[in-house]
Amino acid sequence: MTEKKTIEEFLGELSSKAPVPGGGGASAIGGAIGNGLGQMVANLTIGKKKYAEYEEELKELLERMKELQRGFTDLADRDGEVFAPLAAAYRLPYETDLEKQYKDQVMEASLLAASLIPMQIMETCMEMLAILSVLAEKGSRMAISDVGVGVQFIRASLTGAAMNVFINTGSMKNRDEAERLNERAQLMIDRGTEAADEIYDKILKGLKK
Amino acid sequence: MTEKKTIEEFLGELSSKAPVPGGGGASAIGGAIGNGLGQMVANLTIGKKKYAEYEEELKELLERMKELQRGFTDLADRDGEVFAPLAAAYRLPYETDLEKQYKDQVMEASLLAASLIPMQIMETCMEMLAILSVLAEKGSRMAISDVGVGVQFIRASLTGAAMNVFINTGSMKNRDEAERLNERAQLMIDRGTEAADEIYDKILKGLKK
Repeated sequence: MTEKKTIEEFLGELSSKAPVPGGGGASAIGGAIGNGLGQMVANLTIGKKKYAEYEEELKELLERMKELQRGFTDLADRDGEVFAPLAAAYRLPYETDLEKQYKDQVMEASLLAASLIPMQIMETCMEMLAILSVLAEKGSRMAISDVGVGVQFIRASLTGAAMNVFINTGSMKNRDEAERLNERAQLMIDRGTEAADEIYDKILKGLKK
Repeated sequence: MTEKKTIEEFLGELSSKAPVPGGGGASAIGGAIGNGLGQMVANLTIGKKKYAEYEEELKELLERMKELQRGFTDLADRDGEVFAPLAAAYRLPYETDLEKQYKDQVMEASLLAASLIPMQIMETCMEMLAILSVLAEKGSRMAISDVGVGVQFIRASLTGAAMNVFINTGSMKNRDEAERLNERAQLMIDRGTEAADEIYDKILKGLKK
């Protein structure tokens, strides 16, 4: 399990030639870090008199973030798990008609599975951006910079995971399915980076005043 | 030491109320992850016949990236270390003239120290972007998406660390020094995000073809 590794081990494995963890696993961990900063801001706000009117809403968001953090770390593990079948599929023989038909089918299924994990990372990031946007408004002013850092991690997780959607859909034979996934991913990149940049720029402006 | 923690422990401490690790430490770890992806791409390219002409250059970049990764993890530790003196300075009494003078001096020195660590994270990110730009051109095509993910992590580390520069310079009394730091940080944000987005967009375009 990815989260049981030390940061040193994770960085060592990431830096190595080994295919796993790669960009997909890293993106999921980046999402978990951005989420952690969101939780920190909620924890620093809850219980403070000044923010009492937001208490209930922030408690709910905190609980949801805890679930989403488990989501991110699970997706880091699952991203690793879909890689082995895909690598094995690439190595299948491709000579006879039967072999071709079999390999095409296995490849297609493996590529789809390998696209859907980063797609789920992206969807989790979109929900996190909505939560961070609330925290930017209602979270403790003392921790506002941490909302900004969190937003940047979620942005990196979103755009990073998108790379792994496109690299896998690019090899799919079912172009309709591939295009459908690409369009959804591109839409999330567009909306997500716009939302992230808006939150970040507003915080930056406030800090520089 | 941050890197001896498991990812689970790091996420737990990050998510908690505890001030350390916060956005600064997270930014440094994000930089180390982006760096790790850069190293992976170099490792997947070195030794491949197809890329023999870049072999020497990539070996040098790999060695440099190893140093920069230690830089990032050291900065994660140091970001935690400058927080305690700053928090202690905020708690100093501020009644008599002597107390005021003393607290002002201690605060100023602590704020400067707390600004310089994220500044160093940003500088390390700028060097990483230059390296990733080379890897985007000369790294194995099989790992091009990982360059794109790496770029996004470095972008998050850069813009995340900037938040911690501005939040600390904002309280400095020496406004000349503060403005000088702010200008440098803003210049790195502008140039760095432009460079990062250029590399990422080019890779994305290539993947979608």
